[in-house]
Amino acid sequence: MLHRPLHGGNLAWAAALAGCSPGAILDFSASINPLGPPKSALAAIQAHLSYLVAYPDPDYQQLRSSLSELHNLPSDWILPGNGSAELLTWACWDLSKLQRTYLVTPAFGDYLRALKAFGTNVVKCPLGTGDWGLESGIWDKQIDSGHKSGLLLNNPHNPTGQLFFRETILPLLEQFALVVVDEAFMDFLRPSSQQSLISVVQEYPNLVILRSLTKFYSLPGLRLGYALAHPDRLRRWQQLRDPWPVNILAAAAAQAVIKDTVFGQQTWDWLEEAKARLFEGLAEIPGLHPYPSAANFLLVQSEQPSTAVQESLLKKEQILIRDCLSFPELGDRYFRVAVRSVADNQRLIDGLAEIRSREEGENFRF
Amino acid sequence: MLHRPLHGGNLAWAAALAGCSPGAILDFSASINPLGPPKSALAAIQAHLSYLVAYPDPDYQQLRSSLSELHNLPSDWILPGNGSAELLTWACWDLSKLQRTYLVTPAFGDYLRALKAFGTNVVKCPLGTGDWGLESGIWDKQIDSGHKSGLLLNNPHNPTGQLFFRETILPLLEQFALVVVDEAFMDFLRPSSQQSLISVVQEYPNLVILRSLTKFYSLPGLRLGYALAHPDRLRRWQQLRDPWPVNILAAAAAQAVIKDTVFGQQTWDWLEEAKARLFEGLAEIPGLHPYPSAANFLLVQSEQPSTAVQESLLKKEQILIRDCLSFPELGDRYFRVAVRSVADNQRLIDGLAEIRSREEGENFRF
Repeated sequence: MLHRPLHGGNLAWAAALAGCSPGAILDFSASINPLGPPKSALAAIQAHLSYLVAYPDPDYQQLRSSLSELHNLPSDWILPGNGSAELLTWACWDLSKLQRTYLVTPAFGDYLRALKAFGTNVVKCPLGTGDWGLESGIWDKQIDSGHKSGLLLNNPHNPTGQLFFRETILPLLEQFALVVVDEAFMDFLRPSSQQSLISVVQEYPNLVILRSLTKFYSLPGLRLGYALAHPDRLRRWQQLRDPWPVNILAAAAAQAVIKDTVFGQQTWDWLEEAKARLFEGLAEIPGLHPYPSAANFLLVQSEQPSTAVQESLLKKEQILIRDCLSFPELGDRYFRVAVRSVADNQRLIDGLAEIRSREEGENFRF
Repeated sequence: MLHRPLHGGNLAWAAALAGCSPGAILDFSASINPLGPPKSALAAIQAHLSYLVAYPDPDYQQLRSSLSELHNLPSDWILPGNGSAELLTWACWDLSKLQRTYLVTPAFGDYLRALKAFGTNVVKCPLGTGDWGLESGIWDKQIDSGHKSGLLLNNPHNPTGQLFFRETILPLLEQFALVVVDEAFMDFLRPSSQQSLISVVQEYPNLVILRSLTKFYSLPGLRLGYALAHPDRLRRWQQLRDPWPVNILAAAAAQAVIKDTVFGQQTWDWLEEAKARLFEGLAEIPGLHPYPSAANFLLVQSEQPSTAVQESLLKKEQILIRDCLSFPELGDRYFRVAVRSVADNQRLIDGLAEIRSREEGENFRF
């Protein structure tokens, strides 16, 4: 008997329930760009197979230099990692040294893993339900002014899709000894709409920004992220972790994709249209309430338990949505869906509408 | 100006000194099997490129099951990692909780990095110079019997090539609260000659064995190792580290190579002959004293400073050997060379003999 997975994308569990092969599942549970991976990534991997006989450069100079150009930041302010999850572990090592760390909730499950790893004293800091505002959540707390507290949040926020403005976060940098902002989904916004703190990172030695390359470029199996923070902090992290955390193929793919501006443009164009149509389609189904989202997923409130909706969709349509049981603040009346192609999204909308009308006959409503 | 690298295989530094491209350097500094990577590894990588759009299975069940078959051990006693260096970090987290840890020296440089990362109290425990015996080193110490100490060693030992017998290590397991044995080079011995502790790991909850797949299978750029230890310990490590440390391509290559018995046989056959001939060739050069080795490298004592020999070889022959400056107990009168193909080894022997005879005319002797 397979257990219900706590992280999106565990297709083995879903396939067993749906009675099909994992490959036959239409997966809305993992928020991965359906346009990728870009050909440039696969070509770079192919071209670097012959380099596997050598160790990676422990300083990852070429990759850092490409990221340095991308963000217009000196390369020693950038540290590549084996997925941003690896870098989160080291950020949480730093947070564990503080008296307490405020965690903005609902929060991605791996945050608690990393915070607990080294015994961080965690204080949960909930967003306002429904408006998902950061201000109300943070300012309600009696935040100490002794600069002994840390703060961990992500922007755009997962799973609500809420985007926090730069101006909202900047004052927090004056108040906390360390602020870790996970910007794993920031690149899904067009550059003009992004609210990244990268442009100010050099002004704040107490700021750590985490970025992922695997969601936008559809390479979660490859593991690649990077941190932007003060060089002293990043050098300390390099002493904590092993010397070669990023493998040669991942580093090569990363260098290729960050130069692939065509793929980036295609992604923004697709997401704008597909997300708007998915939002409208969901909003028209009685009993479902999708929230506006800055990312490539939508949080949906549901009158019916999300696990029941999930199970019906799996069994009837072989479609997997993400229940929100791993976000205890949300519980069983929310689910999250990735934005996929317009055609796939329509299958989801039709599937949900179909369940709803069938159940309506049985006096059941979302 | 490039700094002298502390780890073998940094070809950029060597190429600058030799005045050639990194690819033109004949590299004896990194101890990588010259027969690889096996075709089975590259084929597995190619076949799994389409899987990069999904997250790896956080439990790595397929890979663990292959390793479980290989070692005839339940799969929850095995944990794959992003190179054995990643697993060393977590082993050292456990060691840091003890009062002190004895480190057998000379020791691979990354051991000190990992031990210091979490503040382990390290006591160096030198092998007997020349015979490189473990007994004399360990038993000379007044080892406490309070079971509050840890021990970190590797077997076969790097850089001496010394093989410690199972019977030598087993009594230590009664005395130490935690014994970490890095068996990164054990697979270079034919199964009948191996002294691995894997067969007894289930009897010792205080034993951690680290294994690498990247040296034997020539895939250091891919990063892949695994730990064998009590399931409780491995589950704790999984809470410390991120959920997906091994990328999908590395996991796929690992599963392929451990079934590639033909490649294993070829490697043992090559190594037996090539190592014997390299040893003889080096022993015939006056001023050089190679030590017998169970691994795929030889430690060589040199009457002349090894850095001078290294520089001459680079400039005259574009050959890179490994100086032993990162092993302070050895210092400047030792170098280490990998065993490569018979033809490459002959180039090294000829190069060393040539330097020696030229310098002899100038009254210089190794």
